[in-house]
Amino acid sequence: MNSKKVAGEKAVEFIKDGMTIGLGTGTTTYYTIVKLAEKVKDGLKVKAISTSNKTTELAEKLGIEIVPFNEVDYVDLTIDGADEVDNLLNGIKGGGGALLYEKLVAMSSKKVIWVVDNSKKVHCLGRFPLPVEVVPFAYNQIFNKLEELKLNPEIRKRDSNYYLTDGQHYIIDLFLNKIEDPYKLEKTLKSIPGVVETGLFLQIANTVIVGNGDQVQIIEKS
Amino acid sequence: MNSKKVAGEKAVEFIKDGMTIGLGTGTTTYYTIVKLAEKVKDGLKVKAISTSNKTTELAEKLGIEIVPFNEVDYVDLTIDGADEVDNLLNGIKGGGGALLYEKLVAMSSKKVIWVVDNSKKVHCLGRFPLPVEVVPFAYNQIFNKLEELKLNPEIRKRDSNYYLTDGQHYIIDLFLNKIEDPYKLEKTLKSIPGVVETGLFLQIANTVIVGNGDQVQIIEKS
Repeated sequence: MNSKKVAGEKAVEFIKDGMTIGLGTGTTTYYTIVKLAEKVKDGLKVKAISTSNKTTELAEKLGIEIVPFNEVDYVDLTIDGADEVDNLLNGIKGGGGALLYEKLVAMSSKKVIWVVDNSKKVHCLGRFPLPVEVVPFAYNQIFNKLEELKLNPEIRKRDSNYYLTDGQHYIIDLFLNKIEDPYKLEKTLKSIPGVVETGLFLQIANTVIVGNGDQVQIIEKS
Repeated sequence: MNSKKVAGEKAVEFIKDGMTIGLGTGTTTYYTIVKLAEKVKDGLKVKAISTSNKTTELAEKLGIEIVPFNEVDYVDLTIDGADEVDNLLNGIKGGGGALLYEKLVAMSSKKVIWVVDNSKKVHCLGRFPLPVEVVPFAYNQIFNKLEELKLNPEIRKRDSNYYLTDGQHYIIDLFLNKIEDPYKLEKTLKSIPGVVETGLFLQIANTVIVGNGDQVQIIEKS
């Protein structure tokens, strides 16, 4: 069995009848959604909140009803992937471009579980490029500012256009290699006018489920 | 002559040949744009940056060429209106819904002039509702948070729909009456996930031109 499938499916055991569930976006959450759909077919009742058009499409195709985020006051449990997780359960997300909605749903969640394969565990964040979601009107000014700060920015493209998020923003990826102080970096980035959100998810995950071959490790936030 | 016209036209005297000019949005800036168009017809060369679709439309109709904000690295001078200005030249903007682009252009400007009529001068900000631009995906959660903070939020509507900004966001107006500490409020608002920008413009204007009947008063930031 592959590591992503093991982790993604394990998380479904945390879902209880009647819960409002946040569904993340990505290749590991894919398995969570497929497994959840089986349980829903078997009678499990949940309200599901989607973090992207892609997840909405998949979930609805499999028979999971998606409720607009604005129609709930909070989420019981969000299950999502991550591009990197460190020992403190801080992470980088947004490789798939859904960071803004993922962060908004996570921050309204009582509990957040990340599902990852073993390759996502790191000692120091930053090898994975850090996505920053920005207002398209000012992307050039924001890019210049990020360059001035020596943060190695690159505007994300799809084909020959700039990549557009579900929220109609652009993404600038920062090639940092090593993030010494993620809290300081988060503060710096959020203080730049036109930065909507960053892919730094600090103190957000409560639990990380790591798949490694057919083994699964569950790490709780200390 | 009306106060808005006096103030709006006076500001054009600050525009020099070859400048990149930020053009605000609103009923006073309207007169700035009309007067600037006359000077452009007479041979003045400027690059103009627009802060809203409305201003772009007006300027282009009058023969002022608008350059995309992303094509310039900075703006020499921005002329904009304001809904309220206090004695420290801090203000509230966004009654017309253009706060995000207005703030982005202002923050890339070497000099910012506000043109207002006398009624906009206040001792304490807050009588005018403070606009907060938010990500539509999470407007309900943001609204709840603002209510929890006792900030009297109301989602702005146009006809029977929510008002949509040029940047595809919603606006939540805060009916505060009095803002004791605008710096603290700005920090609180910007820390809420999904808040893109606020209408608090602090330490941004360098000069305010106040029209009062046919008189004009020029206040420089001390």
